[in-house]
Amino acid sequence: MMNTTQTALQANEKEVLTNAMEHLHNRTYFSQFPESPKAYDEASITEGEKQFHARLNQNYSGLFETNSKGWVGEEVSPFLQVGLGITYPAFSTAQLIQYAQESAPIWAAVSVEQRAAILLDSLEQIKLRFSELAYATMHTTGQSFMMSFQASGPHALDRALETIALGHHEISRFANQATWKKNMGKFDLVLEKNYKAMAKGTGLLIGCSTFPTWNTLPGLYANLITGNNCIAKPHPKAIYPMAIVVEELQKVFVKHQLPATIVQLAPDTIAAPITKELCENPYITLVDYTGGNAFGNYVESLTGKTVFTEKAGVNSVIIDSTNDIQQTAQNLAFSLSLYSGQMCTAPQNIYVAESGIQTPEGTVSFEEFKGILANAITGLANHPKAGAGTLAAIQNDQTLKNIQHQLSNFSEYACKAETIQNPEFENARTQTISLAVSDSSNKENLLKEYFGPFAILVKTKDFDESLQIANESAKQKGAITCLAYCTNEEKMKLIEDTMNKAFTPVSFNLSGAAFVNQHAAFSDFHVTGGNPAGNASFTDPNFVNQRFIWVGNRYMKQ
Amino acid sequence: MMNTTQTALQANEKEVLTNAMEHLHNRTYFSQFPESPKAYDEASITEGEKQFHARLNQNYSGLFETNSKGWVGEEVSPFLQVGLGITYPAFSTAQLIQYAQESAPIWAAVSVEQRAAILLDSLEQIKLRFSELAYATMHTTGQSFMMSFQASGPHALDRALETIALGHHEISRFANQATWKKNMGKFDLVLEKNYKAMAKGTGLLIGCSTFPTWNTLPGLYANLITGNNCIAKPHPKAIYPMAIVVEELQKVFVKHQLPATIVQLAPDTIAAPITKELCENPYITLVDYTGGNAFGNYVESLTGKTVFTEKAGVNSVIIDSTNDIQQTAQNLAFSLSLYSGQMCTAPQNIYVAESGIQTPEGTVSFEEFKGILANAITGLANHPKAGAGTLAAIQNDQTLKNIQHQLSNFSEYACKAETIQNPEFENARTQTISLAVSDSSNKENLLKEYFGPFAILVKTKDFDESLQIANESAKQKGAITCLAYCTNEEKMKLIEDTMNKAFTPVSFNLSGAAFVNQHAAFSDFHVTGGNPAGNASFTDPNFVNQRFIWVGNRYMKQ
Repeated sequence: MMNTTQTALQANEKEVLTNAMEHLHNRTYFSQFPESPKAYDEASITEGEKQFHARLNQNYSGLFETNSKGWVGEEVSPFLQVGLGITYPAFSTAQLIQYAQESAPIWAAVSVEQRAAILLDSLEQIKLRFSELAYATMHTTGQSFMMSFQASGPHALDRALETIALGHHEISRFANQATWKKNMGKFDLVLEKNYKAMAKGTGLLIGCSTFPTWNTLPGLYANLITGNNCIAKPHPKAIYPMAIVVEELQKVFVKHQLPATIVQLAPDTIAAPITKELCENPYITLVDYTGGNAFGNYVESLTGKTVFTEKAGVNSVIIDSTNDIQQTAQNLAFSLSLYSGQMCTAPQNIYVAESGIQTPEGTVSFEEFKGILANAITGLANHPKAGAGTLAAIQNDQTLKNIQHQLSNFSEYACKAETIQNPEFENARTQTISLAVSDSSNKENLLKEYFGPFAILVKTKDFDESLQIANESAKQKGAITCLAYCTNEEKMKLIEDTMNKAFTPVSFNLSGAAFVNQHAAFSDFHVTGGNPAGNASFTDPNFVNQRFIWVGNRYMKQ
Repeated sequence: MMNTTQTALQANEKEVLTNAMEHLHNRTYFSQFPESPKAYDEASITEGEKQFHARLNQNYSGLFETNSKGWVGEEVSPFLQVGLGITYPAFSTAQLIQYAQESAPIWAAVSVEQRAAILLDSLEQIKLRFSELAYATMHTTGQSFMMSFQASGPHALDRALETIALGHHEISRFANQATWKKNMGKFDLVLEKNYKAMAKGTGLLIGCSTFPTWNTLPGLYANLITGNNCIAKPHPKAIYPMAIVVEELQKVFVKHQLPATIVQLAPDTIAAPITKELCENPYITLVDYTGGNAFGNYVESLTGKTVFTEKAGVNSVIIDSTNDIQQTAQNLAFSLSLYSGQMCTAPQNIYVAESGIQTPEGTVSFEEFKGILANAITGLANHPKAGAGTLAAIQNDQTLKNIQHQLSNFSEYACKAETIQNPEFENARTQTISLAVSDSSNKENLLKEYFGPFAILVKTKDFDESLQIANESAKQKGAITCLAYCTNEEKMKLIEDTMNKAFTPVSFNLSGAAFVNQHAAFSDFHVTGGNPAGNASFTDPNFVNQRFIWVGNRYMKQ
């Protein structure tokens, strides 16, 4: 069925995988996909916006369509606040499962070397679509153009490459065959053995509305490199970016004389969701999920399936001492404001002792810091060049309604939800960060996730209480990041040890261009999998090894 | 607290780990612990029986006892059919958990290098107890002396070494620290990062009555090398072997100035079991279980815990064709009879087409084979030298009651449960193999696990049906092994492909000294983790990687 001469792993591809593994093991920076649009073919970049406009109010063409049951699509641009009018071929669950059953054994029979070659090819093809992918992401998620380009394009593909390299490595690490000899005294007992990494089956990928490819590609490529086929079920409000990815994968499969349906797109609507139906189908053996906790807990409760979740948490900031209070406030303000707090890595609760923050110029009181941070937040929001691009747009109205509703949880605000004007999109759905101020006794309201542009400056009794609440919060509610400002080595060690025991990573004293929100492929584990914020990590060995089963056979020569 | 100079990994220990990983990756034979008693210090071997006799009707001394709540013990020798009268210090669950909480951070803080050195030391100490361990195993499980020696001693320790080596390797594979540089155009963004493999917490090990150390040591040592402390909860009828292991571990911990309670023994009784109480304690984060399916399914249903199970399955034999029908029958008879079918790897359902078995001498009919196999089984059982030693003893009365009860499930028997005389132990609890004969329509009774000396010769319509039922059975009921006799290459490939898709390994054409029951450390994955017979495998990377969490921290120089 497949032309294997076309799909052998070439020397340059082997080098990519070897380099990737070296960087993964050394945890150093590595990118096959530079993050600046300038690094890419200029024509393809300028073409992207045209392609985006040509898609509007059309059926999306290019995806596998055979036996689709009709067209669905209800995406709304957070920048334009009008529907995109793009529709995608939809399938019944029965049809999706039937295609999956047909393509599963075909893909599983392709060698891991060939799978790696095909998947690397798909990354090269998606790379040619980076610009359209950026517009698709921008006008579904509300991210700025630059974040859309970077997150959905190069960063997502670096994460995909990470799983391809690691999956290839893990499957190749044990011998395919062995001659087993055991001396039995007068003779050798000899058995011929072989070892196979058997794919678990068909994976379901449940996407989210804020990072539709960055969060989905790791699971997608981890499934594919380990021989599992996939059904991608994007969020109904963010289908377009995944449609581009699936289209390119399907084209690459067909080019290699394989079924397009090795990866299927399964769009649905808010009114008629198919996610649970797919989750509970016995043929689905793997589920990758990114999104809120309620559905995430449901996914984790599925029995007889291997599930990987990235849910939400309450990310903490502990500010004890700093060499530069202004830089600290600016760095934090940027992390809070970036994409209006809609990143799973965004800080939420900022703990400062009532005795204030130590600096070389003396103690900055809690009240003073409240003013400095509020100024940094509003200064950034109102900055004519940086404000609109940093905050970008709110993905959906519900986020704003939630914030409106939860404002009453706190009596004091250092700054409060305002709309800003986006010079490029007059109808953009925007909101600045609301910074609630609370003392530490308000646990019920503190230990909650507030999604979107909302953070809480918490006055604690002392450093120990700051750390204690941050730790308790991570254990109970989960945490993906912790940011600490501290110049005392003993306290730094205590923060690291304590938060790490709640399986939460700590970033210390970030300033300038380093932000807690960023988790770099090949270096940072994204989500640890050890606290309620999720059970999986991009990309540790479990993320690929749990997708296949080692089976060994033994032969005696007759 | 710990004298680190005593515990650095020595050159010879490093070599052991390096060799172990090389053999693990190459899947070739490797043993640090020769399986013949003759290879060990003669004095320690002859001492073992004396030590065993000295233990009878005594409190077991040598274990950590502080704050124990009393002494429990109700083991019965299957060879003597009298109680051993040995009692062990028992603790309340609250006390066990308190000790675990105290020792957990201490052990987690020991480096993986030092943990490896300490654990290798413990294996050397247990090695000096192989002989007593053999008697302890024999008189609790009913295994023969030789199997007791091999399974509880060298083979169990090889499996332990496998997990030590793999755990050490996995934790060491990623850099401990990295300097991360990213060019930002006019400057480099630089972060110092560190990476830590954080232990998940405290592991509970639930032992079984048939292989009390072989099945428990992999999880025990996998927990320990990855920094988790352990509570070993042996089966109430097979405490003694684990008491020896725990005693030696505790002594090694104390020698290295660490708390004995890094590993605790938690004996209980049939009347007052503590296993569920421990399972459900929120402080227990890891559970390793070997045993029946009912309790295994309960363990798998525990939420918020990482669980590893080895349960039971219905192991199949497919006999299509053979070059030597007598050798085939003898090999199979031995595998059925070894330890009276009480091995989780023992065959149960033997599928033969109604058209018979192809041999170089022509077709052997189903009826003929029935006679040949029954003769091989009874011939072995009645063999004056080999019989008693092969069958050994039945671990408990319930197994015999179950067989008595299930005999009525089938109307025909090729040979049926008899008692044999053990020349060494006149009171040994013995029973020969019952070989039921059934056609393939009796699915309800075929697709059940019959534990102990019970097997079913199944007449199928043809080869395809044999394979189809074996496959369906593995998927529905689980399977740890599949044995096939087949000389047709096309059919062999079909068997392998089909059974492997049910995540079941196949052994082909075993004869002579090669038996399907045997799974060798460093070469055979024991249980695949892919079908209902269990969710874990000795020892694939998941078996160690799921016991810890990678956490990375980032530092910016201020």
